Parts: sequence; structure tokens; C-alpha cells
Amino acid sequence: MSQQRPPSANIRKRPKKQLMVFTGRANPGLAQEVASQLGTELVPTSAYDFANGEIYVRFEESVRGSDAFVIQSHTSPINECIMEHLLMVDALKRASAKRITVVMPFYGYARQDKKHRGREPISARLMADMFRTAGADRLICVDLHTDQIQGFFDGPVDHLMAIPILSEYVAGRYGDQDLAVVSPDAGRIKVAEQWSKRLGGVPLAFIHKTRDINRPNEMVANRVVGDVRDRVCVLVDDMIDTGGTITKAADALMADGARAVVIAATHAILSDPAVERLRDCAAVEVIVTNTLPIAPEKEIDCLTVLSIAPLISAAVKEVFQDGSVTSLFAGRA
Amino acid sequence: MSQQRPPSANIRKRPKKQLMVFTGRANPGLAQEVASQLGTELVPTSAYDFANGEIYVRFEESVRGSDAFVIQSHTSPINECIMEHLLMVDALKRASAKRITVVMPFYGYARQDKKHRGREPISARLMADMFRTAGADRLICVDLHTDQIQGFFDGPVDHLMAIPILSEYVAGRYGDQDLAVVSPDAGRIKVAEQWSKRLGGVPLAFIHKTRDINRPNEMVANRVVGDVRDRVCVLVDDMIDTGGTITKAADALMADGARAVVIAATHAILSDPAVERLRDCAAVEVIVTNTLPIAPEKEIDCLTVLSIAPLISAAVKEVFQDGSVTSLFAGRA
Amino acid sequence: MSQQRPPSANIRKRPKKQLMVFTGRANPGLAQEVASQLGTELVPTSAYDFANGEIYVRFEESVRGSDAFVIQSHTSPINECIMEHLLMVDALKRASAKRITVVMPFYGYARQDKKHRGREPISARLMADMFRTAGADRLICVDLHTDQIQGFFDGPVDHLMAIPILSEYVAGRYGDQDLAVVSPDAGRIKVAEQWSKRLGGVPLAFIHKTRDINRPNEMVANRVVGDVRDRVCVLVDDMIDTGGTITKAADALMADGARAVVIAATHAILSDPAVERLRDCAAVEVIVTNTLPIAPEKEIDCLTVLSIAPLISAAVKEVFQDGSVTSLFAGRA
Amino acid sequence: MSQQRPPSANIRKRPKKQLMVFTGRANPGLAQEVASQLGTELVPTSAYDFANGEIYVRFEESVRGSDAFVIQSHTSPINECIMEHLLMVDALKRASAKRITVVMPFYGYARQDKKHRGREPISARLMADMFRTAGADRLICVDLHTDQIQGFFDGPVDHLMAIPILSEYVAGRYGDQDLAVVSPDAGRIKVAEQWSKRLGGVPLAFIHKTRDINRPNEMVANRVVGDVRDRVCVLVDDMIDTGGTITKAADALMADGARAVVIAATHAILSDPAVERLRDCAAVEVIVTNTLPIAPEKEIDCLTVLSIAPLISAAVKEVFQDGSVTSLFAGRA
Amino acid sequence: MSQQRPPSANIRKRPKKQLMVFTGRANPGLAQEVASQLGTELVPTSAYDFANGEIYVRFEESVRGSDAFVIQSHTSPINECIMEHLLMVDALKRASAKRITVVMPFYGYARQDKKHRGREPISARLMADMFRTAGADRLICVDLHTDQIQGFFDGPVDHLMAIPILSEYVAGRYGDQDLAVVSPDAGRIKVAEQWSKRLGGVPLAFIHKTRDINRPNEMVANRVVGDVRDRVCVLVDDMIDTGGTITKAADALMADGARAVVIAATHAILSDPAVERLRDCAAVEVIVTNTLPIAPEKEIDCLTVLSIAPLISAAVKEVFQDGSVTSLFAGRA
Amino acid sequence: MSQQRPPSANIRKRPKKQLMVFTGRANPGLAQEVASQLGTELVPTSAYDFANGEIYVRFEESVRGSDAFVIQSHTSPINECIMEHLLMVDALKRASAKRITVVMPFYGYARQDKKHRGREPISARLMADMFRTAGADRLICVDLHTDQIQGFFDGPVDHLMAIPILSEYVAGRYGDQDLAVVSPDAGRIKVAEQWSKRLGGVPLAFIHKTRDINRPNEMVANRVVGDVRDRVCVLVDDMIDTGGTITKAADALMADGARAVVIAATHAILSDPAVERLRDCAAVEVIVTNTLPIAPEKEIDCLTVLSIAPLISAAVKEVFQDGSVTSLFAGRA
Repeated sequence: MSQQRPPSANIRKRPKKQLMVFTGRANPGLAQEVASQLGTELVPTSAYDFANGEIYVRFEESVRGSDAFVIQSHTSPINECIMEHLLMVDALKRASAKRITVVMPFYGYARQDKKHRGREPISARLMADMFRTAGADRLICVDLHTDQIQGFFDGPVDHLMAIPILSEYVAGRYGDQDLAVVSPDAGRIKVAEQWSKRLGGVPLAFIHKTRDINRPNEMVANRVVGDVRDRVCVLVDDMIDTGGTITKAADALMADGARAVVIAATHAILSDPAVERLRDCAAVEVIVTNTLPIAPEKEIDCLTVLSIAPLISAAVKEVFQDGSVTSLFAGRA
Repeated sequence: MSQQRPPSANIRKRPKKQLMVFTGRANPGLAQEVASQLGTELVPTSAYDFANGEIYVRFEESVRGSDAFVIQSHTSPINECIMEHLLMVDALKRASAKRITVVMPFYGYARQDKKHRGREPISARLMADMFRTAGADRLICVDLHTDQIQGFFDGPVDHLMAIPILSEYVAGRYGDQDLAVVSPDAGRIKVAEQWSKRLGGVPLAFIHKTRDINRPNEMVANRVVGDVRDRVCVLVDDMIDTGGTITKAADALMADGARAVVIAATHAILSDPAVERLRDCAAVEVIVTNTLPIAPEKEIDCLTVLSIAPLISAAVKEVFQDGSVTSLFAGRA
Repeated sequence: MSQQRPPSANIRKRPKKQLMVFTGRANPGLAQEVASQLGTELVPTSAYDFANGEIYVRFEESVRGSDAFVIQSHTSPINECIMEHLLMVDALKRASAKRITVVMPFYGYARQDKKHRGREPISARLMADMFRTAGADRLICVDLHTDQIQGFFDGPVDHLMAIPILSEYVAGRYGDQDLAVVSPDAGRIKVAEQWSKRLGGVPLAFIHKTRDINRPNEMVANRVVGDVRDRVCVLVDDMIDTGGTITKAADALMADGARAVVIAATHAILSDPAVERLRDCAAVEVIVTNTLPIAPEKEIDCLTVLSIAPLISAAVKEVFQDGSVTSLFAGRA
Repeated sequence: MSQQRPPSANIRKRPKKQLMVFTGRANPGLAQEVASQLGTELVPTSAYDFANGEIYVRFEESVRGSDAFVIQSHTSPINECIMEHLLMVDALKRASAKRITVVMPFYGYARQDKKHRGREPISARLMADMFRTAGADRLICVDLHTDQIQGFFDGPVDHLMAIPILSEYVAGRYGDQDLAVVSPDAGRIKVAEQWSKRLGGVPLAFIHKTRDINRPNEMVANRVVGDVRDRVCVLVDDMIDTGGTITKAADALMADGARAVVIAATHAILSDPAVERLRDCAAVEVIVTNTLPIAPEKEIDCLTVLSIAPLISAAVKEVFQDGSVTSLFAGRA
Repeated sequence: MSQQRPPSANIRKRPKKQLMVFTGRANPGLAQEVASQLGTELVPTSAYDFANGEIYVRFEESVRGSDAFVIQSHTSPINECIMEHLLMVDALKRASAKRITVVMPFYGYARQDKKHRGREPISARLMADMFRTAGADRLICVDLHTDQIQGFFDGPVDHLMAIPILSEYVAGRYGDQDLAVVSPDAGRIKVAEQWSKRLGGVPLAFIHKTRDINRPNEMVANRVVGDVRDRVCVLVDDMIDTGGTITKAADALMADGARAVVIAATHAILSDPAVERLRDCAAVEVIVTNTLPIAPEKEIDCLTVLSIAPLISAAVKEVFQDGSVTSLFAGRA
Repeated sequence: MSQQRPPSANIRKRPKKQLMVFTGRANPGLAQEVASQLGTELVPTSAYDFANGEIYVRFEESVRGSDAFVIQSHTSPINECIMEHLLMVDALKRASAKRITVVMPFYGYARQDKKHRGREPISARLMADMFRTAGADRLICVDLHTDQIQGFFDGPVDHLMAIPILSEYVAGRYGDQDLAVVSPDAGRIKVAEQWSKRLGGVPLAFIHKTRDINRPNEMVANRVVGDVRDRVCVLVDDMIDTGGTITKAADALMADGARAVVIAATHAILSDPAVERLRDCAAVEVIVTNTLPIAPEKEIDCLTVLSIAPLISAAVKEVFQDGSVTSLFAGRA
């Protein structure tokens, strides 16, 4: 079994890397936008539900050897969106994609990132592990609820920040007035500090409130800490879910003498009754991104939606070309 | 650092094993029935949806050191039920349950147990891996779509069979007539053979049909192979989803001269328009179990629901007491 | 520790992918054929047994960075062949092969893909896990005993089908006569349906028999279901082991009025007394492939051996070049 | 190979669980205290350094089958302490301990729980993974730097809180005066809220400052937000490292009109020049626990050290007896 | 979903641990001996080969919850014995054994514990990983070829030593004469040192030889280093495979003036032509153990076989009862 | 969701592989030398200790997609060096390095490669597992204490040998005299045999001594076995730690009539009092490499330090270019 062989008999070729962008049914508009900014098109994909609700997915083209980016927002119905995302990753793994990057513009269950009380799951960690199990090599996320979630995934996580997009818009529109940056929650003051820096060092304030331990995303009391009198307050948060906290904060700011309130948040979950609350609250403008799709009936007048697609497509490009994502954020990401 | 110590200083205790039964919101009736047959009660559990659909679960009692059995049927909305099941397992793991047995009366995505075509996921394997990742030590399932699914889980699987429950009922009710056992699908004849044996060696037949490769659970053609004339045909299957296959089979049997048709299946998924089809078809009785909950409006006259709870509670008892599950099925499980 | 560095100081090179084909001692002829169809030669390999039967393997050339394909049929003595296969994979992993594809023309222990009775192993899953443990990145298999085995491996599996090769030969030789396709087992009728389609929609039949639960590959009873009178019956199966089932089926078909019987199967295990049985049975021709080596003394007159090498080399080429294996089978693999 | 056997031939015994407490050389006093509160003694252990600094550990008694608790504070020299901790876990695993609980009164590298900038490690996650790799089944920690660190470990984490011990002491000593609770950092206001609740709802304040991004544990600016005039301010934090932040905060509070300042923190790292700073600052008392050992020369007059041992031994007892740790904290841990 | 429940509703029981001993077909005599020394019987097991050589195993009794010890010598045909061992472990895992201890009186492939040259496997590590993958929780081995192999398994390894059994026999029979202990290989002098100590400090010698790098277990040259004149030389080794080395060593010793030579080795592989060589060599007695079965035709006159069963059964007992295996060897194992 | 797409829409690029060399603070000189021999520079890296001794590392350039080689000698303080090494690997993994090769010129804890007594760790295995956990894809090591350590790592290990460098120097300087090669330990005679071969077949000897089981790297007795009279003895070892063994061996050789003694060893640990012992002992020259940094005060007159950098840079180059490391050592590595 030990014959001679001319070394020239080897078959060599120079590999080609191929970028392929995939999406499920959660937010096809955003994925389409990302793909076209990258100069490609979404890979044609069959995705539908069987009669009992089980999801079926299949790619219509060969994905073998590809550098696959699978974009799916975790929007309502959120468990379907996540399961579809997981199934797509499994299908890519079994169809021999070379590398699988899971792009989560919004990371489902991110708020369950710790045990608030004993005998709870740490759902955000479970998500990370399930995507790993399905075959994800890396994640791209936008404005995670807490930075520590990066550490939940056993692999590289590119953590993108919407603050350049949001703050540039605010600066352009309100930069000529006296501003204050306000955190709706003592725990997020560090983000407010970044806003302050980007808006030229404007003053900071925050709303002091306590949480009901049983329902971690509902608040009970509000008090403004810091001076907001006669200022246009930029109330900043990572997400607007039912909008209770943020709209009460806006009202509290007006009651405390603010000249106007502008709300800026990355993720527009807008669960009921967020739209009513935003429409009725004191804020003059609510600025969000399209990390989550916004149903037409929710596009109320005061809502401004900025596209996150340029940020995601820039990051995908850097990842594909082995460039630097950190450089997109001046060293911070 | 090397001091003397009287060996008697050790603290010893004899451990106690404690059986605890849990359920989510999918099929609480079945879980309750199992618990009470075991002489215990379900562990009080908080489970609700946040505004954006994320599921929250928490156990109201300490589960530390317990031998935990988590029962959840994978019913509609199926992805929520599965996610809730996974989150409960994660919470049990983090709350120090000693052993976690996942009880799936119906195993979601079991039909996606292979790639029917290239670039599909093998969803049933992904389910097994996700439950393992969440912390499941073992599974208890009922009538898996294919036996090979046992091999998808890296650990013990107790595979229970409803056939003793179903066939005993059929024997009691129709045993005095000339019977035939009919498989609606050539691939499941081996199950029909078991039925034949249990009913005293009655003749076998099957329906020959072809599948549309794009939608694996819809059929296109029917022809009876075997002799059913003047016999009461027991048409057996593992599940009734939309009911198309089985009801067409029933009609084909009547057209072939059967005296009557009785349908027996373990899992009553009953997706639309199953209820209409069953009501309108030639079968005189449709016998199923409660592995899946059956909504009151689906409880049509011809439907007989037998409880699977005695089978599950017997298996849980054997598992808890280190008895034998195989012995429940005369060596086969 | 923070000195400057001109970015140009980086060392870059364009990687070359290199295809290398390996084989053990099980079926060197097939591997040689695959290599030469790929335009390469087998990598020289030392493989022998130590005095106590332990296997020694070593590659005589550097394999660093290669895209390695390790071909080994799991033939008799089957446990040696599997162990040699595993040791080769381990050696490749430790010698820095870039990617290791295990090519199993015949997958050992595939028939033990489930627990037929309690307290059995699921040997086919164990095989998948052991190859994964040894370092296999992916599998290429031919006609797995059940499709679900693909799901046993945690990675991509390219599942090749011999049916185009076998059916083209049958069509060429017998296509001008009245044919019927016969499955020797109710459980394999779906494969027969594919044959029927490829042969232009000829009628189907199957043999009804029961299995002895203690020895899963021996059968006890035979009855032809379907009409085979005056037809040339193509009796199709995935493998011929001792040949008991298939030769009894051939005899039963003749007894039922068939004009002639042709047997077609992918894997020619041909354990004793298969050769005698085939020689003595009613079949006029037995068509198999060389997924397993066939000893000269087993090459009886009625046996036709088609080469599987073109199929395997085509698949290897697609895998190496990131092409599509699915396309080789019109979307099904 | 299938002989008969009377079932009575089985050998059965009722297992005994045995609690064993281990420690390395980091903080033997605390471990001793825990052991004696549990009514046992530390398992005699050899631990020393070889000439080149490699650590050697060995247990002097059999640990087979034990329920092992390995207590080690991650104190200076911190990498040695961690490595010794890891080696003890490996030795326990290989010596057949039944369950290994790693007790970290102070969790090393907890502050590196996220990437502050690109291309940093997430060291706290790496610690969790290394302990898992070594063989840890579970963790017991005290006052983690962020709650999310619980999610870094793939298994149960019992997260103990020193706040009952610290706040009870403060209430006893200062409860008759007008108090305010002050967070030295906007990000930790939630902990201050818990203090406020425990002290009967006293007012809250916090210090607003910015961090230098390159050296995450040094601060640059201080401003009191909230009203502290004429109040005894309880300045609360999780740890005192070099003491810069907290002592500047104390001074700022006095400058803002506070009547007195009391500092309370769980972890007394006391790196240079913490002792000088604490001695020179405005605080009248500095209350800490012994999660980390405090060298005699650091025991300055204003320093009060409360023992964490009762908390740890209570938790160990609950874990050993399958009781509830959550119940120790009224449902929160 | 949050009902009340009396805590007394919990079902508790005190678990029983049950020792069960299993064996395959490699060395049933030894296993039987171990079982009966433990006061139990082997669990009835079906094990046979299918026609193509695939192995089938099944346990005839429930093994659920058992503390399982699976004894299998890795003897000829060695790959079958190893595969059978692996399949038994898989079957135990899937049948819910509580803990699986793999007992390898002789560890197959132990001599391939490193890469002697590039591009070889490290087969001994692969064995460890495959048993882990199959489900082994722990190993019990006797006289591993090198101690480092313990580190190949990710879990506890109890490493037993036959030296007490062998040296006690030698002392009893030859202790009244002038002895020397001789290592046949410079690399094993440390074992000879232990022998020397046990025999009362008798002198040491060794044979100096070089190995052929291509066939690591065949030697080429022999020279006695040390003084053996007029002494009864006890030539000690871990195994006798083809016997070439050891018998040449015996001859060299006689040529150097030894009065007599006695060979002592743990593992009697006795591959051809070991028996001839031993019969023809200068040794007066060859003392081995039954870690491997010895065929009747190999039981030549000079061969003395001591039973290893008492050692193994003592170790199994300690493991089962959470005693100390180390204590069996005065702290060394 | 199934739109058409021109295949030309795919984005392809040919990947570039980029070699990047990293080092921590343990032995920057060696790393610098390796980098410059490779024609590159070390990647600028921040690495410092926080006040409490926790290590901080960060890379100042993008490492995305790089082929990263991280060089760190495990020198004193050894646990810091190892931890820094691990943290650098974690940072590389999370920063998306494509492949991470850990270069350990000296492998810390290599001497703890087995349990010398019960209840010890196998620290060398733990090291391998921790580097794997952190993200290492492969190792490059020099002269491991035992070859089996290669098998501790689950991946490729390139094991380099300093013997060509050392023996070439010795041959050049002493080759014209009568030489003998002496092993200080019976267990390392095989290495001495290689030296003998490289020096033209000079005679061998070894020192017979016994070890104290409690402190495995201190010796107690010495006796020369073999003839060294009037020869220049080359005393060879893998490392010099405290130098006790080797210097006593040198003295014993002189006492036995050696003309002169030259010591050659790969790893110069030189723990106290090695320098004193070497200075005072009978050896005329002590030849080592710079796998470990040597402090200026330890560079005594008789010490010759040869650079290992050419060997490491040659290996790195072969690894980067998918060449052969084995070929560097004529087939042995």
C-alpha cells in the first residue's frame, strides 16, 4: 500500500469566498435593503408553515462553501421568528455553508439576561447556546440590552451601535437649541453619557424609578434627577416596548419644566399600547430605527424611522473582507 | 496546610430522591392527570407572555435536587410551546434540579427527520440538540414518527407506544366482527403488523399512494392493496394532521367493499380542515389519544379520545424508581 | 509593549486548496478508481497490523492544509475496517488536514439505527459520533439504510444515490419488455416508487413478510402484493447480505407468474450463503455496485457489478469546488 | 452468553452523601470558619509551589463520592489563586468526587465581563468556561460585579448577597440618624435602591462621573446628584479596589453638605493605595466583609470587617441538603 | 397556572444504588471470577455477530439506575473486542444506567500513546475519547503502558497495579536466593525500582538496546548494564507480545553469568511466536496475570498465570462503596 | 419569498491569508526574533496588570481573519504568564482571528503529566484543555517533557526538537575528543540514544537514582551506569530547573573518571539555586536555548545560550504555508 506518486499529481485550486445573504419572513424589507447595499440579492428561500404551525425552510440555490449571513429580526410572533432563524442556520450547516454569521438586528429575550429572581431561566444565554448548537459561527447584533450578552456566545460577536445614526439625526435637527440628554433609568446613564459627548457635552439627567420585581419591564414611580428646565430633552433608550416607561418619563420631564422632549431609541418593538401612549405623550418626535419591522398602522406622525441597513451592510462587508468592525465605531465595538 | 482531622468529622446524609412534575401551558389537563395518577400535584409555575411575546417562566417552589419531569405537548402555537418547554428546562438546570426528564407526548417537528431534498434542515435532530443544550438529561416520547428519532438525542429516550391502549379499545368494541388492519401508507405496514398481532392475526392491507415532494404531508393518489371486502377496517396511523390522507383512505376502503371503517391514531393534531374531513368521511369512529389537547369545538361525535396519562404516569414511575420501562411493552420499548 | 509597525509588514498569501484522496485496506480498487477519475493518485499510506491485531497507519506525505477525502468501505472484517477508518481520521486531524471528509460507500452498522428492543445500542448513531470525535468534518455516503441516519451526524452529510446508475443499466437492458418494480419489504416501497418513475411509470408490487424480532435481518414469510404476472420483475433493495429475503422474494415472484426476475441492489455484502442462494435462485441477473469489494470467488455468472466510482468522484469534485451535490440528483440529495 | 441469574443476586446499597469542604492557600481563615459553622473540618490538603512557581496540590484523604465544596478567594496574587483553584477542581474530578461546587467569595476578573473596546477578551466568561472545563458542576458566588455573569457559567450558580449582613450592621449603628444612601456610580443605583428599602426608605443620591475608557477602573470627575445635606451618607459599592472612586465620592459628599459618610462594600480588595486613601478620606467608617483576606497591616482603625462565613455556610448547607438558597434572600437569589 | 399545593404532596424515596457487572465475549472467565468475588453474577447479555460481522449486544435485564461495570479485555481479535465494548457502553447509556465504569484489564492501543513519527494517529487518546463519546463515566485499568494515558481520558481513571500480586509470588518462590531485578528496556527502570523495593532492595540492571523507528515494538540489540552474575534475575515488563525482546533479554542475562532468569509481566498478549520463544528461552518460569485470556494451547509448562480478579473486584468494590482505591496501593494509584 | 436572481449577483473574492505574530510579556525578545526572521513585526499589543493583579490585554490592530501565532514562554511568574496567554487567545477568538496557533516554547506544568500519587491533578492535561477552551486551534511546542503530552490536546500539535541545534553546537566544539552521552535519569535514555546517533555513535551511560515520591523533581542518589572514564561527557536533559540533579550527575561523572562534563538542555528554567549550583559544579560548559528568558544576572560565564528562534520561525512558516513540519526533523516530529 505504499506506492510512489509524482507530487505534481496533487489537485490544487485557489478558493473563492462567496458572500450570500439570507433572510426569513420576519423583516424582509431590511434584509433586502442590506443585500442591495452590498450589491447582491437575497438567496431565494422557501419558507412557510405546515398546517400545524411547524416551519419549513429550504434554500433554492446551492450554498456550499458560502460565507453566509442570515438576517432575521426577532419580532412578533417572536418565537416563530427565532425558530425560523434557528432552522435556517441548521439547514445552512447541513448544506455545507463555510461560515455562518447570524445577524440579529434585535436579539430576542435579551432582557432575560440574568435571574431577577430564583428559578428563572437565563433566556438570553439559552438563545446564544441554541444558535451555537444549530451551527452559528458568529453573531452580529445591534445595541444589545446589556453588553454582557456578548459574553453569552462562545464565539465572535460584532456588536453594532445605532448611536451614530440616531445622534447625527438629532444633532442635525435640534442641535441649535439648548439640549439635555436624559436616561429613563438610572442603569443606562452610561449610554446617556455617550450621547452627551456626541452632542457636544450637553448636561445629563435621569429618571429615578423603581421596578416591580415580578414584571421586570413595568415601572412604578418617576422623579427627575438633574436639571432639565427650559431645555429640549433627548430621552434615550435602547428599546420602546409598551412605551410606558418612556412616555411617563417624557411627561415627567415636561412637568419639570423641559421646553420639549424628543425620544430616541434603537429598537421599536411597539407592543400594545405603545402607539397610543406615544401619540398621547408629551414628546414632539420619536426617533427609532428599523431593526424591527414597523407595521403601517403603527407609523404615526411623530414617529421617525431611520434605516439601520447602512450600518449592518457596512459591518457585513468588513466581516466578509476581513476588515475591521471596531474601526466603524472608533475603536469601541 | 496539612492538619489532622478525625474521620468522624465528616457530614453524611442519606439522600432523598424527590419526584416533581412540571408543565407549561400547552396541555395542562394531561399533566394534571399524570400528576394525580402519580399521587402528587403539579409544581406551581408562573408562565406568561411579555408584551412582545417573549415567554416568562418561573417555578414557585424550590426544585433543588429534584427528579424533574417536564411535560409539554407540542401543540399549536407549536413554536411557543417548544420555546416554553426549552425555557423551563433551562430554569430547572439553573435551579439545580438533579435530573431533568423532558416528557413530549407529541414530539414537535418529528416529521422533518431527514432531508427530503437538499438544503433543508433536519429539524427533528435540531429539537433533540436544543433540548440537550437547555439541560435535558433524558426524553420520554410517545409514538415517534420514526423510531430513528430516538437516535437523535444523545442520552436515554423512553419511547412509549399507545398501541396497547388503542388496540384494547378496538378489540373490546369491534372484536366480534371480521376485522382487517389497514395502513394508510406503505411505509407504516410494520405498525399495522403489530396491530394485526394484537387483534388476533387479522388480515392486513395498505393504501398505495405517492407523495408530492414539495409538501411532504400531502398525498395525491390512493389504491387499496390487500383484501378488505366485508370487513371492518381498522385504519391505523401515528397522527392525524389535516386528515386528508386518512379520510381519503377511509373512502377508498369503503369503495373497495369494506363493511365499515374505524380510524385509530395516537396524535390528534387536527389542523384545519381535519374536523370537517373527519365528520364528512366514511369512518364510523375516530379513536385518538390526548397526547395533544383537543379543543372543545373539535370534539365531534365520531371522535373518541382515550387518555394517554396512565401510560405516561406508569413510565414516569418506572423511571423514578429505576424500574423497567421496557417491561411495560413486553420487551420492545 | 506598544510599538509602531508599518501595516505593510504583514505577511499575506493567497491560500491554495489541495485535494488529497486517502484509503485504507478495505477496498483499494474503488479508491484508486475514484482518484484516477479525479486526475490524482492516492496518497501513499502505510497500514498494517501489529502482532496483536492493533492497526498502524501513517501517511507518507505531508497532508497539512489539505482538503482530505478518506475512502473506506466497511466490509469484512468490518470492525477492523471501521477502526482503520477512524485511526486514519485521527491521524489526519493531528497532521493538520484542513478539512476531513469521510467517504463511506457502505456505512457500517447502518441497520442498527434504532432500538428494535429495549437495552440495545443505537450503533449507527455511535458510528456517527465516533467519526465526529476522531475529527470528521463531513460525510459522503451512498444509499443509507434509512435516510434518518443523515441526522445522526452533527455536520453536513452528502447522501448519494446509486439509483441513476442501476436504473439506467436496467432500462438499457430490459426496457423493451413489460416490467414491474418490486420491493422485497413493505417498508421500502418509496424507493420502489422512484424506480418506477425512472423506468417510465411501470407497476409496483411488494412482498409482504414478517420479521423475527430477535434477529432483525432474517425474514419468515412471503406473499406477493400487487400484480406481477408475465412481467419482468425488477426486485430492488439497498443491500444483499445473506440474500435470504431477496432470493425467497425472487422465488415467490416466479411462483406468482412473473416472466423473469432481475435483482438490483446497491450494496453487495454477500455474506455466506448469499452466493449459493443467488446462484440457485430464480433471478436471471443480479445487478450490484462496488461500494463493497467483491471477492473473485463471489463473482458468479449472474452477477453484474457496476462501478460507483463515477458517482463518488463527481460528488468529491463538487464538494472540493464548492459546487452542488444536490444538483447531481435533481434536487433530492 | 445468556445464563440465568436469580434477581436476588444484585448488590444494592443505600448511598450516603458526604459533605467535604476544601480550600487552597488564598483565604484559609474564611474556609476554616465556614467549615466549623458546618460542623466539619477542612479536608487536609497539600499545596505548595515548585521551584519554578508551578503549583502542586493533593488531598490527603479519599474524596471519592463526596459532595465537594472548594472555597478559594481570588485574592492577590490573583492568577496563582485562580490556578490553584482550577487545579484543585481537576484533582477532585479525577479523584471521583461526586459533585464539585466551586465557591468563589470573590470572582476574579468579574470586571472584565464585556468588551469595553474591540479586541479585548471577555475574561469573566473565560473564567467560567475554565472552571467548567476543569470539572466544576456549580458555582457559589457573592455579589457578582454584574448579575449577567451568572449566565456565563453553563450550570447552576448560587448568587449570594452580602446586603443583609452589611445593611443590618448599618441600621444597628446609624439607624437613629437621618440617612441617605449614595451610589458612587450611576450604573449601580439599583443596588442603592435595595439599600434604601432595607433602611426604611431613606433618600437616594448618586455621584455622576465619567470613566477613562482605557483603564476601566479609574474615574475622573465627580458631582453629587440628589440631596444629601445634613445626612449621614451610606456610600455603597460592590468592591473597594484602589479606593479612588469611593474616597473621592466621600469627599464630594462632605463638600455637598453631608453630615458624615459611611462606606459599605462587600469586597475589600484594597490594592495600593487604598489603605492610605481610606485613612485620609472623609468617611468615618468603612464596612466590608472578609470575602477577601485582609492583611493585618491593612486593618486600619476606621475599617470594620464583617464575616461572610455565616452566609456561605448557610448556602452550602442548603445546597448539600437540597434545600433552597433562594429562600435565604426572600426569593431573589 | 399558580395553584396552591401542600408540600407534603411531594413524592420522595431513598435511592438504592445497585452494582451490576457486565462482560462481552473477550474474557468471560475473568469477568465471572470478578462477579463471584463480588458476590453477584454477570448480567445475562446477548452478544453475537451478524452475518457481515457487525456485532449485536443486548442486556436481558433492566439496567436502569444501576452502577454498571463493563469488563472487557482487549484481546484478539482486538478491534472486535473494542467495538463490542463500545457498543455495550452505548447500550447502557441509552438504557439509563446511572453510572458506567469501563473496566479494561488490558487497554487496547496503549502503545500508540504518542506520535513516534509525523502523521501517525495517537490511537490511545482516540480510544479514550471514543469510550467517553459512547458514554463511559470512568475507567478502571491495569498497568497502563505509560502513566500519561490516564490523562487521555476526561474523567476519573483508577489505575491498578499488578506488582503486589506478581512480586509477592516471586518473593514467596525465589526470595531465599540472591536476586536481581532487570528491566528489559532503559525506559522502564522506574518500574524495576519498585520491584527492587518490594523484594527488599535487591540490585538493579537493565538491557540496553535500540528500537527500529518503523516498527516500534521490535528491538535490535542487547547489552546488560549492571551486575547480574550468579543472581536469579527477575526480568520485569508490563506486557509480553511476541516475546522477542524479553526472551533475548533472558538469553543475554544468562550469557552475562546470571544463575537463572524468571520473567514477570502483567499482560500476556502472547502473539505468535511468543509461545515458541518463551518455551525455547533461558527463563525457568514466566509469571503473568489473566488480564488477557490465555488459550489452552498457550499454557506451556513454564507459564504461571496469577489471577488479577481479586485486584479488580477489590477496586470495583471501593468504587461502588465510595471507598478509596488509592489505599489499595499505599497511596500511589 | 422565492424571487429570481441572476447568479452573477453573487459577491466573490479570493481570500488572503495573513500571518500575524503576537506575544505577551513573558519573553518578548524571543518573539521579536521570531517575527523578524519571518519578515514581519509583532502586532502591537497592550498588556498590563490592574491594581489587583488581574491582567488586561488588547490588540492595537484588527486581527480579523488572520492566521494568528501567539508566542508566550511559561516562565516566572508562571501562572501569570499562562493566564496572559489564555486571555490573548480568548481575545483573538472573539476578535475573529481565523486560526489561532498557540506557541509554547516551554509548556508550563508539563511535569505534572500523570498522577504520581492518588488525588493529584493531571495539570498538563488541564493546561491543554484550557487553551482549547479559550480558543486554540493548534499548538507548537518545543521538547515536551514527555511525548504523550501531545495526546493531551484535542487537535494538531507540532512538537519541535532542539536536539539539532544543541548537538550541532556540541559536535562543532567537542567533536574532536572522545565523547560519551550521559542521561541523568534512566527514563530519558531514549533521548540520549538520539544524541549518540547524532554525535556519530558515541557510547552511552546513565545515572541511576531514585526519586522522592512527594517532591517529584528532587532526587536522592546517584550512581553511574556505563563507562565514562577519560571521556568528555555530554550530560543531556530536557530542562534545568533547580539544577540539583544535573549538577550532582556532573560531579558523579567526574568522580567516575570523566575527563570533562558538558551539560546540554533545552529549557533553562534556572530556579534558585540553579545558578549557584551550575557555577560551582564540575561542568565546563552549560548549553541551553532561549525557550525561556534568562535574566542578565543569571548569564554566568559557563552558560551558552543558543537561540531557538530559527526553529520556531521555520515551523511557523511551514504551518502558515501548509508545508511540512515533520520534514524539518527528517520525519520524526
